[in-house]
Amino acid sequence: MTIYDISEKAGVSIATVSRVLNGSRNVSEKTRKKVLDVIALYEYTPNAFARGLGLNTMKTIGIMCADSSDLYLAKAIYYIEQKLRSNGYDSLLCCTGYDLDAKASSMNLLITKKVDGIILAGSNFIYEVETENKYITDAASQIPVMLLNADLDIPNVYSVVSDDYTSMYKATLQMIQSGTEDILYFYNSASYSGKRKLSGFQDAMEKKGLDSGLARFYQGSHEDITDMTEYLKNLCRSGLKFHGVIAADDTLALAAVKYAREMHYRIPQDFTILGYNNSMLTVCCEPELTSIDNKLETLCQHLINTLLGVLAGKEMPKKTVFSGELIRRGTTR
Amino acid sequence: MTIYDISEKAGVSIATVSRVLNGSRNVSEKTRKKVLDVIALYEYTPNAFARGLGLNTMKTIGIMCADSSDLYLAKAIYYIEQKLRSNGYDSLLCCTGYDLDAKASSMNLLITKKVDGIILAGSNFIYEVETENKYITDAASQIPVMLLNADLDIPNVYSVVSDDYTSMYKATLQMIQSGTEDILYFYNSASYSGKRKLSGFQDAMEKKGLDSGLARFYQGSHEDITDMTEYLKNLCRSGLKFHGVIAADDTLALAAVKYAREMHYRIPQDFTILGYNNSMLTVCCEPELTSIDNKLETLCQHLINTLLGVLAGKEMPKKTVFSGELIRRGTTR
Repeated sequence: MTIYDISEKAGVSIATVSRVLNGSRNVSEKTRKKVLDVIALYEYTPNAFARGLGLNTMKTIGIMCADSSDLYLAKAIYYIEQKLRSNGYDSLLCCTGYDLDAKASSMNLLITKKVDGIILAGSNFIYEVETENKYITDAASQIPVMLLNADLDIPNVYSVVSDDYTSMYKATLQMIQSGTEDILYFYNSASYSGKRKLSGFQDAMEKKGLDSGLARFYQGSHEDITDMTEYLKNLCRSGLKFHGVIAADDTLALAAVKYAREMHYRIPQDFTILGYNNSMLTVCCEPELTSIDNKLETLCQHLINTLLGVLAGKEMPKKTVFSGELIRRGTTR
Repeated sequence: MTIYDISEKAGVSIATVSRVLNGSRNVSEKTRKKVLDVIALYEYTPNAFARGLGLNTMKTIGIMCADSSDLYLAKAIYYIEQKLRSNGYDSLLCCTGYDLDAKASSMNLLITKKVDGIILAGSNFIYEVETENKYITDAASQIPVMLLNADLDIPNVYSVVSDDYTSMYKATLQMIQSGTEDILYFYNSASYSGKRKLSGFQDAMEKKGLDSGLARFYQGSHEDITDMTEYLKNLCRSGLKFHGVIAADDTLALAAVKYAREMHYRIPQDFTILGYNNSMLTVCCEPELTSIDNKLETLCQHLINTLLGVLAGKEMPKKTVFSGELIRRGTTR
């Protein structure tokens, strides 16, 4: 739908339509209403306007991520960008950090740039307190918002997630069954996905009547493996006993491998370790790291397909869930 | 300047201006010329128009990189994006792959999007054959082009580089002096920076009267460490003798660590390894990897400062060179 169509259907001049769109005062209330009604009726958006004028074929999708140098998010951005490009869309990337205000401000900025849709990569954009998700609700009232590995039940928001809870639940049961019962859960994110993973671990431990309280949150840099290893050594010095580590991502798991080696545990005979994301890090250590593959490329492909469907006006699923897969290597029995 | 101004100055209706902009045939040649003359006179651009309509405020820098999931480039994008944002600029990211046509097409696309400048992250955008750099020359005739770790002497192109040649030259001499003389140079990029590193290695070997021909190019995926390790094993099976590896990046160096361990060499007593980029991978292996820090964050900071200076109309240096630094860890003596 173009400005011409609106003009025709509202029975006013193109200049009048432009004035309404620009919020100019030189339009009577009656005329304004006529134009806005047509716009509402045909779900016209300024984007379609720009496109109709051939001024700016937008075809741009905003991507928000907390930190593009995080291994998992870097990979996600890579897949998303490639798949958008192959469908003729450009990507406008905003790295927001982890602060709510910065996220809301990036969101506004992308909307100002008239992107066709916004992808929130990673689950740290969703808050438990409903009011803190207002920036997403607001955005979704204008353009579709896609969540990668997060979930929010509001209109015009679509989720594609990996079933982190079940992946972690099953993997924990397997570690217990292979003989390790004093398992430390090691994590550094309390995001939607982070909490789902933690619950999977806790529920599996409780099901087997074991202590589900051995979970420790690491607050440092997401890539400072040396510091993570120190953290584990301090836990040990403080008297904590554990012979298995289930980590919420491969970087933390790698620190556990370093810890076990420095403590002269034999892996996997005396000490077992499980990572998450099945990243390139899994083959960096010795023995190589068992890890859960959460099918990131599949998620991204599906996310883009869903977005393209929504933009084309098709009925698309609100939420799609994929299963993860345990990739066995040398750190588990 | 808005569509209203053009309409007024050309003495035609807004609808007519729109028709001209859309290339519609329902406009006489005379009218078309009138409109185009006004547009030319006032240097009107469709973007400025969009801005006038409140559709689009620019302040956007295009970033091109071959592959945003490459560890080094992911980090570069992260720094660049953060520093641009803190200066009020948005980033439009294009991952181009390694094909010249795709690079040229992304460049055109960014120019169509009316970015204020373009940053080429990584040295694989520069070609030896001058005509293949035409896409950069063309872009630079319109907006400033910034090269991160590459060098091209044409107007309106600015370079910020790490002195890879000298870093590699010095590090090779040090490995020789510490007693390893049969050194394999292991690399996977023949980019500007890749060649500079290789030359540094070769010149150091030749200076010491050693064989500088032991350089092997790895063509596989930039993150398939298992395959890289296989490659080294095959070299060994084919009769090649080497007790040191200097790698053009940390991923390749990590494969060398895995290789040495599988061959039961003691590191660093029997086998020494040097990486490049000083990435998080350096602490993933045992012993930890000696690597060259090429000061990526400093380079990115300087690149953005230079770009902001250029955009502000200041006289800025065409080329800035920083020194790398050898970070000693456990894989060298």
